[in-house]
Amino acid sequence: MSVLIKGGRIITAGDDYVGDVFVEGESVSLIGRSLDVQADKVIDARGKYVIPGAVDPHTHMEMPFGGTVSCDDFTSGTISAAFGGTTSHVDFCLQEPGQSLPDALATWHEKIERKKPVIDVGFHLAVTDLTKGGNLEDLAKAPDEGVTSYKLFMAYKGAIMVEDETLFKTMQVAARTGALVMVHAENGDAIDILVKEALAEGKTEPKWHAATRPPLTEGEATNRAIQLARIAGAPLYVVHVSCKEAIDPVARARSADWQAWGETCTQYLFIDETALDQPDFEGAKYVYTPPPRPKENQEHLWHALATDMLSVVSTDHCPFNWDGQKTLGRDDFSKIPNGGPGIENRLHMLHHFGVREGRISMNRFVELVSTNPARFFGMYPRKGTIAVGSDADIVVFDPEKEHTISARTHHSNIDYNLYEGTEVVGAPDTVLVRGKVIVENDELVGSPGDGRFVRRARFGEHLTGAGGS
Amino acid sequence: MSVLIKGGRIITAGDDYVGDVFVEGESVSLIGRSLDVQADKVIDARGKYVIPGAVDPHTHMEMPFGGTVSCDDFTSGTISAAFGGTTSHVDFCLQEPGQSLPDALATWHEKIERKKPVIDVGFHLAVTDLTKGGNLEDLAKAPDEGVTSYKLFMAYKGAIMVEDETLFKTMQVAARTGALVMVHAENGDAIDILVKEALAEGKTEPKWHAATRPPLTEGEATNRAIQLARIAGAPLYVVHVSCKEAIDPVARARSADWQAWGETCTQYLFIDETALDQPDFEGAKYVYTPPPRPKENQEHLWHALATDMLSVVSTDHCPFNWDGQKTLGRDDFSKIPNGGPGIENRLHMLHHFGVREGRISMNRFVELVSTNPARFFGMYPRKGTIAVGSDADIVVFDPEKEHTISARTHHSNIDYNLYEGTEVVGAPDTVLVRGKVIVENDELVGSPGDGRFVRRARFGEHLTGAGGS
Amino acid sequence: MSVLIKGGRIITAGDDYVGDVFVEGESVSLIGRSLDVQADKVIDARGKYVIPGAVDPHTHMEMPFGGTVSCDDFTSGTISAAFGGTTSHVDFCLQEPGQSLPDALATWHEKIERKKPVIDVGFHLAVTDLTKGGNLEDLAKAPDEGVTSYKLFMAYKGAIMVEDETLFKTMQVAARTGALVMVHAENGDAIDILVKEALAEGKTEPKWHAATRPPLTEGEATNRAIQLARIAGAPLYVVHVSCKEAIDPVARARSADWQAWGETCTQYLFIDETALDQPDFEGAKYVYTPPPRPKENQEHLWHALATDMLSVVSTDHCPFNWDGQKTLGRDDFSKIPNGGPGIENRLHMLHHFGVREGRISMNRFVELVSTNPARFFGMYPRKGTIAVGSDADIVVFDPEKEHTISARTHHSNIDYNLYEGTEVVGAPDTVLVRGKVIVENDELVGSPGDGRFVRRARFGEHLTGAGGS
Amino acid sequence: MSVLIKGGRIITAGDDYVGDVFVEGESVSLIGRSLDVQADKVIDARGKYVIPGAVDPHTHMEMPFGGTVSCDDFTSGTISAAFGGTTSHVDFCLQEPGQSLPDALATWHEKIERKKPVIDVGFHLAVTDLTKGGNLEDLAKAPDEGVTSYKLFMAYKGAIMVEDETLFKTMQVAARTGALVMVHAENGDAIDILVKEALAEGKTEPKWHAATRPPLTEGEATNRAIQLARIAGAPLYVVHVSCKEAIDPVARARSADWQAWGETCTQYLFIDETALDQPDFEGAKYVYTPPPRPKENQEHLWHALATDMLSVVSTDHCPFNWDGQKTLGRDDFSKIPNGGPGIENRLHMLHHFGVREGRISMNRFVELVSTNPARFFGMYPRKGTIAVGSDADIVVFDPEKEHTISARTHHSNIDYNLYEGTEVVGAPDTVLVRGKVIVENDELVGSPGDGRFVRRARFGEHLTGAGGS
Ligand SMILES: [Zn+2]
Ligand SMILES: [Zn+2]
Ligand SMILES: [Zn+2]
Ligand SMILES: [Zn+2]
Ligand SMILES: [Zn+2]
Ligand SMILES: [Zn+2]
Ligand SMILES: [Zn+2]
Ligand SMILES: [Zn+2]
Repeated sequence: MSVLIKGGRIITAGDDYVGDVFVEGESVSLIGRSLDVQADKVIDARGKYVIPGAVDPHTHMEMPFGGTVSCDDFTSGTISAAFGGTTSHVDFCLQEPGQSLPDALATWHEKIERKKPVIDVGFHLAVTDLTKGGNLEDLAKAPDEGVTSYKLFMAYKGAIMVEDETLFKTMQVAARTGALVMVHAENGDAIDILVKEALAEGKTEPKWHAATRPPLTEGEATNRAIQLARIAGAPLYVVHVSCKEAIDPVARARSADWQAWGETCTQYLFIDETALDQPDFEGAKYVYTPPPRPKENQEHLWHALATDMLSVVSTDHCPFNWDGQKTLGRDDFSKIPNGGPGIENRLHMLHHFGVREGRISMNRFVELVSTNPARFFGMYPRKGTIAVGSDADIVVFDPEKEHTISARTHHSNIDYNLYEGTEVVGAPDTVLVRGKVIVENDELVGSPGDGRFVRRARFGEHLTGAGGS
Repeated sequence: MSVLIKGGRIITAGDDYVGDVFVEGESVSLIGRSLDVQADKVIDARGKYVIPGAVDPHTHMEMPFGGTVSCDDFTSGTISAAFGGTTSHVDFCLQEPGQSLPDALATWHEKIERKKPVIDVGFHLAVTDLTKGGNLEDLAKAPDEGVTSYKLFMAYKGAIMVEDETLFKTMQVAARTGALVMVHAENGDAIDILVKEALAEGKTEPKWHAATRPPLTEGEATNRAIQLARIAGAPLYVVHVSCKEAIDPVARARSADWQAWGETCTQYLFIDETALDQPDFEGAKYVYTPPPRPKENQEHLWHALATDMLSVVSTDHCPFNWDGQKTLGRDDFSKIPNGGPGIENRLHMLHHFGVREGRISMNRFVELVSTNPARFFGMYPRKGTIAVGSDADIVVFDPEKEHTISARTHHSNIDYNLYEGTEVVGAPDTVLVRGKVIVENDELVGSPGDGRFVRRARFGEHLTGAGGS
Repeated sequence: MSVLIKGGRIITAGDDYVGDVFVEGESVSLIGRSLDVQADKVIDARGKYVIPGAVDPHTHMEMPFGGTVSCDDFTSGTISAAFGGTTSHVDFCLQEPGQSLPDALATWHEKIERKKPVIDVGFHLAVTDLTKGGNLEDLAKAPDEGVTSYKLFMAYKGAIMVEDETLFKTMQVAARTGALVMVHAENGDAIDILVKEALAEGKTEPKWHAATRPPLTEGEATNRAIQLARIAGAPLYVVHVSCKEAIDPVARARSADWQAWGETCTQYLFIDETALDQPDFEGAKYVYTPPPRPKENQEHLWHALATDMLSVVSTDHCPFNWDGQKTLGRDDFSKIPNGGPGIENRLHMLHHFGVREGRISMNRFVELVSTNPARFFGMYPRKGTIAVGSDADIVVFDPEKEHTISARTHHSNIDYNLYEGTEVVGAPDTVLVRGKVIVENDELVGSPGDGRFVRRARFGEHLTGAGGS
Repeated sequence: MSVLIKGGRIITAGDDYVGDVFVEGESVSLIGRSLDVQADKVIDARGKYVIPGAVDPHTHMEMPFGGTVSCDDFTSGTISAAFGGTTSHVDFCLQEPGQSLPDALATWHEKIERKKPVIDVGFHLAVTDLTKGGNLEDLAKAPDEGVTSYKLFMAYKGAIMVEDETLFKTMQVAARTGALVMVHAENGDAIDILVKEALAEGKTEPKWHAATRPPLTEGEATNRAIQLARIAGAPLYVVHVSCKEAIDPVARARSADWQAWGETCTQYLFIDETALDQPDFEGAKYVYTPPPRPKENQEHLWHALATDMLSVVSTDHCPFNWDGQKTLGRDDFSKIPNGGPGIENRLHMLHHFGVREGRISMNRFVELVSTNPARFFGMYPRKGTIAVGSDADIVVFDPEKEHTISARTHHSNIDYNLYEGTEVVGAPDTVLVRGKVIVENDELVGSPGDGRFVRRARFGEHLTGAGGS
């Protein structure tokens, strides 16, 4: 099978030129000014961008939380991703407290067997317990299975939160095994107290979700994780940085060239805390964590993306239906499942409001949604660029295509969209995963199973060899 | 009883002039260019400094630690203090885990009854447990007893360390009651792991005390305490800042005008980590916490004192004899009682190496050892200055007096001195506590009981009214 | 002659207590809890503050500028000062280009002979030329005459601006003679171009005064002066810091403990750039330099005063009547004499909006308007504090006195007031200069000649000896 | 003419993969995993790096200075460049004071006609006078001639230094014409005074070159240029940043996302001030400006390159023979022609000590020496990358080739080398300029005239269209 993509403007993190891309099998074999080759399929990309498929390093499919389960499985969620131009994601394999780490991984492998993905999938190992089910030996072995990042939660006390002891020990293991440590950084102790106080005072509406998780709780935990990682000698990736208080310690790390970096997510660039305070429990749609922040943080986030103080934009896609799931917390905001959708709209939003409005260049756009996530998580250069030998994960992106974002048309199972009604210019046209077209003419043409598990390289190493797992 | 101090150079935090001071009863009643009054006693202070008695806000008399007890009681320790020009101190009333807070306070009041002090004494309440013996109600009542500061340990895991939950709840109480929160800031989780690893590898010498408590553990905890205090709305005082990593977050707080400040202690200005690595277990003398740091930190500390990034110099006087106490840890550095002496030599060292060597002015010297501690801990303007109406806690300090520091001559019970053999120029001549001369001609002329318990004002409030308690 | 001030709350930069102050001759001889002495005059200060007389280190009496002369002479200007609680000022002796420096000083001494002051007066030497009239030798001699500060203008190109060559040479001299260097910091080259461009485009209204002197021109010059002073080894004092762009380099200097400090002036805390844009040429009243800035700078200035990044509040009192002087620039903003009044209202405004509104303490208030200026300019401890032996420059300040600021009632010659109609609570009651009451019951009771020239000490030295010159 | 480069590791700023590159005519037409095409010439690059030809944005061929002329013309200098892997450079067309700008450009065009280059050449316009020969109109026209950067000297008083007036006006023009402003940032006024003082004191040896140009003079001017550029709205590029004092303001600009950037040069990473202090006038070889700095600055520079605070490494190649040129200053360091060689060794040094020693990655190496200079100076994507459509300026770089740097073997006319005797691993093997091999087997196979003048795009614009001018 071969594909020829003709005449597009090929844009990577570093380059920008017009040419043809020829794909043989699963990878790019030829790039030329004008290729005169036979291909099974020819895509006319004139006037369009040809960019590496986006990589979403932060998603939660079929994720148990607070007695329910996020409403996308690996099939529905990755179809949604594909329509948005995302061709790989890394999801969190969550150790149930008490469960062994190999069992946790097995559980997640089953999920992608049962509900097969249409894009490529990797796993982070989310560690919640190292004394009962988990242990350091098993933790150290995960990278051998291609699971080269450990995630820890510094919040959600009484559930999946870890104390500094577990956090620090995991960092020490990572320093040895070459894994990247990821943290959800919030001070869970303080938040737990604030939440209980609020509830005791009868403050039950969704807006109290934000009020009980003030920005400083995120800033504090972010700094703590960075310093502990320095002591342990482990590289660190702070997920979903949402506010100035958390940008600051990450920026200090970047300026000092410490091994710590941060991502933000699409929603923090667009939605502010006022979204939570809407009638009829509408605010529950915006109950994700960290919560939407005061609006001025949005400019700080854009600035941090522009100056490379933040390195990635992900989605933290973790969808719960408003009806039936979010409503579990009608009388108690702390019972609203935390999370929101977004995997389908990251490129839409970031291209329109980032690139078109002049905040970032197209090169930086590609770097933020594709190249950098691929680099951090051991998938580059197989993912994250368009180069000879790379996986042919390619998006033909029409910069003039008009699109209205809506739950009525999106492909996730969820019953609402955070950006409902937003009109953007610029959207994916054709999406290829390892050489196979999976979205074309706004139709899914791929099938579950087109996506595969990716055994990722260790932090700082290149992922080479043939395409696929 | 009245005292006339004639012709001295009167130096406070803000002023510097020549004059006479007249003391009636316990307080200063008159200051003049040349006073022509009758006095029961006249002190000739010509050519000498007349400064407010120093306040040491950080001492540990008769303090249980690791199965032993610090070797100065309130009599011996305050005699040592008096010889060094210190006329008030605030000691830590340490709640034994499981003990109620009122019981803890009663225990400490008994100590000063049993072994009466020669200088004035206040108590901080060191909170170790708020679930078994301690509770929030009792905590909130302490300021009514003149105990207006709460101390928490973020290290010493398994012993007196508190989790963030207890720390944060205490801060919330402080925000309501007007108490000042104090923290011993080190990340106890990380240190606990590092200590166990070191011991498991057979690293048992004193030098491993420093190696297992790296500066970043202090820096991290310092920032954590500052941010949690901001969330809770409580003022914060970070004790014994020892290194650049901890100065940095305090300096950020000062620049931003957050309600957080820091002290350092004499020893961190003079002793570096190499002191721990001496033959014949000599290094154990320098096992205090935080440990002696790499030498370059000394310049950072002096700089922070000069630019008001650090606000106080205290001693953390917590003496354990080398012979019989420190030697408990001959085979395991973690069993060496943590602490060192110093209450007698703070002014000696800071005057000689700070003032005489040009690092700080005499006004700043007075501010660091007397005025600022009095302000932070609710004793100003009764303590910390020489002004009409203030307690006549006065030191006639001879700037040219030569003194050799030595365990052979110091007045603490301890069998060694951190600055053994150091020759300084400048030492106290005569020391008055509330109008009574207690040290004169290098002799103790006061008696146990000359010192009294001070009921301190709340943070930011003035302590007024008659002298004494 | 003796004066007894009874029962006031005596507040200095460092102290705050209730007592009596006894003045014999020109200085304070006695301070006591309750003085039982005979005095020629007794002032009842119960319920009032007794503070050191304020020192204004930045004024321009009878100052030639753009073909006119500022409308207060040393008599009228110092009467205005006295009513506002200011008992000393340091004015700028301005070398006319081409004039010798001794001649310049003689000219200014004539001014205070001709129009005698009611408060004490010192001179800074404002150097404009070191090649024709001025020379380095004469410059080096000025401190011997008690003129221990050199001022240079980095703006006003074609008039009194100096190039970096003159600036740097003056700094080198200051490093040798112990003088303090003061700079008016704006980039005169850039401003000159922007002004000419604006005029060429027909932009002639007062608001263009601000638009052609953007904050960055001040920030740049401030940093330049600081760095050149570091190279030369001279201490530096940046006058009238007005905006964040200029605070930043001063704050860097403070944090690094370089020998550079800054003052702001009352007006920058209260008046913003919109004041310039008023109908009927009203805006001309606010044409001073640096110009009023965007309002957000006011918070930055208050913050800098609170965190000791800025060290002094002065007035830059340089009054030009609106009618007849300001109106010279009706058709061309660049012809409006630059300057505004303010010497009478500094304490009114700073007490009401600073102390009463909780931005600074009374101690800091005294430090900013009195103690620090006295220290920087070699008048401390004779000025700037209330201590035995100090000049009896004392203000009995009634913190509850209501006062409405207005040109109708102020004592300067000028025909408008920058704070017209502002109602403040807190004002001077009685004002003494070296023991003589000069203002009492809102009446002038002193006379021209009560003030004297002050031979100031060199930077960092104390001014001692008998009161007066 | 076509060339096929087979099997190399193709490394750009963003990518890193193995493949074949096919060049037709002057540009790259095809990149493939394994190309099966006919080519006039085949280069076996297995085991080697295939990188974009380096761009040196800072050179001075045949440059008049202090009565002599730099000893490389555009033929000899560009041959030296080619051997070092540099395939384009931008040289400074220096307006003689009094000369018109078109005449200056014509003079430089004659130089490259007379002594034709072997690599591509662009010109910056170095403006020294805008009142006599130069004017703003001519300045504004230069970009139309493909000269899209203006250079100004803030030092060399009395020679080519400009005052802030000329600097600022040039920036204003640049803001309109889309040119990039470059500055040599040193405070020429202060330096002029320091130099005269040193000479007056008989300090004539080369080491006084450094002592009279202290780092703060560079730091000050760097900040001044940045702030003036912000006021004018022009983008700024600070050349030859040499020390922490100058890195700091550039780093502030980068963090704030202002339009200002900086380069350093190879020599500042390796040579420190002690080099000037050698017997027998050896030190004169290191008389370039800014001078070699205290050694600790080298770590700051590496750190700034790693954290993207500095953006480019250039050479400031400006060679003067020791014998006959440098010796002009035997008795007076200020008469030593300022400048040193380096165009041939930039990649050698940066690869060996930067990449091999782990300070920067190969991607960053390419970015610093090729991609970024091409981007800043309007030559990207024709230069600075290997992509379809780009000029075939390609270096086959052997990472294991051993090379000893020496004046005996280098290709510049100069009689010494700054890195004499340094043994590096990694050197260019084959060098192509627009598809023509010019260096191969350590021989020059190209000829003068192979290089052409490049009409560069304006700042921020892409240079597209066919190869060559
Ligand atoms: Zn999370
Ligand atoms: Zn998540
Ligand atoms: Zn402690
Ligand atoms: Zn302690
Ligand atoms: Zn001025
Ligand atoms: Zn002025
Ligand atoms: Zn230069
Ligand atoms: Zn140059």
